[in-house]
Amino acid sequence: MSSQFGRLFNISTFGESHCYGVGVSVDGVPARMSLCEADIQRQLDRRRPGGNQLGTERNEADQVMILSGVEKGLTLGTPIGMLVKNKDQRPADYGSMSEIPRPSHADYTYRMKYGIHASSGGGRSSARETIGRVAAGAIADKFLREHYGIDIVAWVSGVGQQASAAINMETIQRDQVDEYAIRCPDPGAAEKMTREIVAARESKDSVGGVITCVCRNLPVGLGEPAFDRLEALLAHAMLSIPATKGFEIGSGFAGAQRHGSEHNDPFVRKGERLGTVTNNSGGVQGGISNGEPVWFRVAFKPPATIGLAQQTVDYTGNPVTLEAKGRHDPCVVPRAVPIVESMAALVLADLALIQKMRN
Amino acid sequence: MSSQFGRLFNISTFGESHCYGVGVSVDGVPARMSLCEADIQRQLDRRRPGGNQLGTERNEADQVMILSGVEKGLTLGTPIGMLVKNKDQRPADYGSMSEIPRPSHADYTYRMKYGIHASSGGGRSSARETIGRVAAGAIADKFLREHYGIDIVAWVSGVGQQASAAINMETIQRDQVDEYAIRCPDPGAAEKMTREIVAARESKDSVGGVITCVCRNLPVGLGEPAFDRLEALLAHAMLSIPATKGFEIGSGFAGAQRHGSEHNDPFVRKGERLGTVTNNSGGVQGGISNGEPVWFRVAFKPPATIGLAQQTVDYTGNPVTLEAKGRHDPCVVPRAVPIVESMAALVLADLALIQKMRN
Amino acid sequence: MSSQFGRLFNISTFGESHCYGVGVSVDGVPARMSLCEADIQRQLDRRRPGGNQLGTERNEADQVMILSGVEKGLTLGTPIGMLVKNKDQRPADYGSMSEIPRPSHADYTYRMKYGIHASSGGGRSSARETIGRVAAGAIADKFLREHYGIDIVAWVSGVGQQASAAINMETIQRDQVDEYAIRCPDPGAAEKMTREIVAARESKDSVGGVITCVCRNLPVGLGEPAFDRLEALLAHAMLSIPATKGFEIGSGFAGAQRHGSEHNDPFVRKGERLGTVTNNSGGVQGGISNGEPVWFRVAFKPPATIGLAQQTVDYTGNPVTLEAKGRHDPCVVPRAVPIVESMAALVLADLALIQKMRN
Amino acid sequence: MSSQFGRLFNISTFGESHCYGVGVSVDGVPARMSLCEADIQRQLDRRRPGGNQLGTERNEADQVMILSGVEKGLTLGTPIGMLVKNKDQRPADYGSMSEIPRPSHADYTYRMKYGIHASSGGGRSSARETIGRVAAGAIADKFLREHYGIDIVAWVSGVGQQASAAINMETIQRDQVDEYAIRCPDPGAAEKMTREIVAARESKDSVGGVITCVCRNLPVGLGEPAFDRLEALLAHAMLSIPATKGFEIGSGFAGAQRHGSEHNDPFVRKGERLGTVTNNSGGVQGGISNGEPVWFRVAFKPPATIGLAQQTVDYTGNPVTLEAKGRHDPCVVPRAVPIVESMAALVLADLALIQKMRN
Repeated sequence: MSSQFGRLFNISTFGESHCYGVGVSVDGVPARMSLCEADIQRQLDRRRPGGNQLGTERNEADQVMILSGVEKGLTLGTPIGMLVKNKDQRPADYGSMSEIPRPSHADYTYRMKYGIHASSGGGRSSARETIGRVAAGAIADKFLREHYGIDIVAWVSGVGQQASAAINMETIQRDQVDEYAIRCPDPGAAEKMTREIVAARESKDSVGGVITCVCRNLPVGLGEPAFDRLEALLAHAMLSIPATKGFEIGSGFAGAQRHGSEHNDPFVRKGERLGTVTNNSGGVQGGISNGEPVWFRVAFKPPATIGLAQQTVDYTGNPVTLEAKGRHDPCVVPRAVPIVESMAALVLADLALIQKMRN
Repeated sequence: MSSQFGRLFNISTFGESHCYGVGVSVDGVPARMSLCEADIQRQLDRRRPGGNQLGTERNEADQVMILSGVEKGLTLGTPIGMLVKNKDQRPADYGSMSEIPRPSHADYTYRMKYGIHASSGGGRSSARETIGRVAAGAIADKFLREHYGIDIVAWVSGVGQQASAAINMETIQRDQVDEYAIRCPDPGAAEKMTREIVAARESKDSVGGVITCVCRNLPVGLGEPAFDRLEALLAHAMLSIPATKGFEIGSGFAGAQRHGSEHNDPFVRKGERLGTVTNNSGGVQGGISNGEPVWFRVAFKPPATIGLAQQTVDYTGNPVTLEAKGRHDPCVVPRAVPIVESMAALVLADLALIQKMRN
Repeated sequence: MSSQFGRLFNISTFGESHCYGVGVSVDGVPARMSLCEADIQRQLDRRRPGGNQLGTERNEADQVMILSGVEKGLTLGTPIGMLVKNKDQRPADYGSMSEIPRPSHADYTYRMKYGIHASSGGGRSSARETIGRVAAGAIADKFLREHYGIDIVAWVSGVGQQASAAINMETIQRDQVDEYAIRCPDPGAAEKMTREIVAARESKDSVGGVITCVCRNLPVGLGEPAFDRLEALLAHAMLSIPATKGFEIGSGFAGAQRHGSEHNDPFVRKGERLGTVTNNSGGVQGGISNGEPVWFRVAFKPPATIGLAQQTVDYTGNPVTLEAKGRHDPCVVPRAVPIVESMAALVLADLALIQKMRN
Repeated sequence: MSSQFGRLFNISTFGESHCYGVGVSVDGVPARMSLCEADIQRQLDRRRPGGNQLGTERNEADQVMILSGVEKGLTLGTPIGMLVKNKDQRPADYGSMSEIPRPSHADYTYRMKYGIHASSGGGRSSARETIGRVAAGAIADKFLREHYGIDIVAWVSGVGQQASAAINMETIQRDQVDEYAIRCPDPGAAEKMTREIVAARESKDSVGGVITCVCRNLPVGLGEPAFDRLEALLAHAMLSIPATKGFEIGSGFAGAQRHGSEHNDPFVRKGERLGTVTNNSGGVQGGISNGEPVWFRVAFKPPATIGLAQQTVDYTGNPVTLEAKGRHDPCVVPRAVPIVESMAALVLADLALIQKMRN
């Protein structure tokens, strides 16, 4: 029951490192939508680490296979099962390291919760679990684009101490973001961020970052008060991504420092509908979309697994020095961009279906 | 389906301004727990606005009545229904104001979503909806305290530009917080914050703020990856509170600027269990509680309803100047403290029950 | 989590005997529907025991009060809370009887499950819990009638050995059913059934019965395979009513004895749509409504509490003779008619809302 | 959202005929349980049609593959993904038949609901969808046996007009049932039933049947009133199996004809616990297991697809004569036995986990 997300547009993910594969079953996808594996592969490829100086060297092919729910290129309205095989299915031999819980990693809590030590350490906290989310999110994304014209674009807005300049949220597109390996569409900041990551890597360290995401062309009315407000579901979705530590929508924590007279978004006529002059609300009022772009930020901590020596203890409490072997991802934000987009798409698709019952 | 929260320890709230009353049904409360109305009234009284210079003048008595699920002072294991009558049950006559959606308020989105204009404007976005949450949260709080020794304490850590000094999270208690009407247990900051609120009020303006909350004595193992991670459920719970714009756990957005070598929390032996030297993780690793205090921060925007003149448009798009009549709450954070505690208690009670199935 | 039913049109009931009252919160009711207490009271009055020779003597007034979700006679789209006060709120003094679990009653299992002995014995298994269902069902019923023209009519088709003749399912109406206190619209059978109940009562015994229900004018397409087939949800709903032992749809158990060539329902053109010549399917094929009337039967066992002496044991296992004091309901089916209708309405309203997301 | 079942022990199934495969993700399985594919294959093999004179000729190999959640023969506490490949993945060419909805089959309702005509006709109403249920049920079954000593045995108790004699519910075992291809452990009835099926087949017709199931060694306390009573969840589960038309627990419809004095089950001391002398209740009182065997019956209609000529209409309403080509399963009950057992196991495993939160 911990592996499902969404009420009507609903997904169930399965899989961890070293098993046969990771996958997802997506229920609630409307029938008669055109869909093929290439529609999904595109976002999976963006999620894949490696291939450049920023990621780990592992080359994860991650080819998705549609198992059910699609026939002759059209969805049937039945659950869409998808599978991505793991390349490395042999439980790893971590040797002595398996007796030492990595600081700030899920090793310890998983072992205590489940009473078993998977060879991958933190079991489902592995980044591979997000493959199912991205595959499902690609379908939600296509549905939203085709039925509502909604588009969702995320980018890296911070790495360590480096922050991007303001990005034009009305116009930014995914291919503009992808022009930079770092996925920050501000050339100056992109270069500095890249240097931060390379430096972290060379010093066997890691570094955190921030992703900003905008969702455009939402109809007015998405969001279900009281508990399933749009921002509440987005916060839930984003904080369920591994390594996240914070979420803010619109003005966020900065808005908490301001006065109502400067923070309120006055209404103005925009064609057929009312719009707002400013968008401190982040496109949401009272938990319901108001037709303005929904925008939010997600904080990612630095990856826990680092090559630098750490003074810690093993499971029995004996002091040890831990130095993680091999190469580790020094920063997750570039590859987390499609994960953020996917989770946003899943939230919006679910709320869009729910809202349909009111029309 | 938008008024429920929790899986096993589950609540359903109902009610808005001007109806007969607001209430809640709480399911999943263990049987044979002692419970009376006074246990619940305590937190409701803390939530109540007014009585001092910081709140609105309205005196909401808010007496809770237990309707079911308790007999001779003991819970029966059946749903606990609770009701708080509204004092002002007559739909208000907002006159011309009802034709003008208040900027950054839920008036507009509710009207567009539901196609009806409740006299209270934003329907369930009203602060009165939180009464049911606090009543239910008081039961969750008592359950957690009695069964696990968990205690949950929140306080105001920011108002406008003012921030409290660091508070000792290991020891802070609710009565220390309540020594200050502003609910900030840092005397210097409390005074400055109070001045901020009074100034906002006198200028017919409003101001935002931040609440910090700590949950102590959690057993290791609460949280259900992948989607119901402890921090994901907390984020969902907090962003479902009216006027919230952000959530961060542990190091939060600041952690996104740091390196792994300085951010990781090394393990150390603490009596029978492993603990961590630092707590940047906020008591959670891989979505599961690690036994350290869980701490997080919630951002609240300045209240939308202000007496200052605002240039906006009415529902038909015609420009108007809006000046809200009457007295309005200039800052919600002091009274939101028990709401934050209640929502945290609901999340933890639910996860505690779920975790019991593993033992 | 055991007191909720429905996914989008969702109810949460609370309350048992001897507490302040029983109630329900109904979420998912569309906004702008006209609704007042009289709409609900009608079905509650039909559920009420007594007033004639067939019921118990207790006169339960059962006046419903709408607590929220309705303003100026229109629904707001927010949860509708409703409450019916209990007349007898003092925990009863059952004396020695409370040490003897009534055979085939919920006394024993509730005590074992919850570890507490409510004064009402079986806690939520009490018939009073069904008040919330009927109140909620009345709203669902109104919604279905106004939006789809669906009408739902149930009647008593069996009491003990007596069975009604075939009733015309295309035309039968509730007021025809109510012409008979026994609620069997077959005059001959009604008289025999009445005699069965009177005889049971005079001999301090009880007797079982069967209710048949028909739902007309369903659109084609209600029902969600695989697990939420229309008949599966109806079966769930019906078997959740106290004292039920069986459910069959269409040909039911009799159909299991037949051949496909005689059991299949051939298609035929009916105006704009396809219909079927016969209706052994009970209006459902593959779990989805086909536009023909949905009809089903529900079996109720004889009430467990009887005045006749029973040889049993007390909670400690000592043999005792039990003779229930007071007057007891000798047969529940007449008053269970509106409960069956209400549960059917709740299932259909939920499936109707879900199906709207496909259009 | 229509492809999930269970709250804590939760499954999501996917797949239909002609796609790559059918599968299931099972969440909530306790960690550290030994599990391998052979544990699951056993029940899948029992579900498989063919191999003898009673089934269709198709030889479905149906080899299960565990995709995730198990490592080195032990469950990890994470979702267990399973997949069974379809042999015939090419969408079939049903030719002209695809323009004629088969009477009493799901062709018509699926097409109307989803607006698309899958090559398999009724999409997820196909019997192949039950493969995921049986695979998941085998895990639930193993969990119940190992943790509680619960065993679940179903058998064919009726085919057409033939009924088995009473079977000893205290002792009947699956291997006794499997001694007969017809899965009726009454030799005389088994022979007559077999003749019924062979006769139906030879005349290109089909025939219905009944399955009886007993669940032994349940602890007292399983079942969640009000809506998730044990019998309500069993009824839901059973009526979600394709081709079912009825469910009754304990005395069922026959009990509705009796008096309380003969129907009540008096208590008696049985070792440490109270038991009952008779078991008309079917092991459940007030929706909660009482420690006696839970037993129930499920009615299956005759299969809709028959070779005999049927007078019906095509989708446009034109009269046609339909004669299904090929060989069709004349009776589903023998192979439905493990499906009934699996669904019962899923219900009990879920309720057992929920009940653990009370201890």
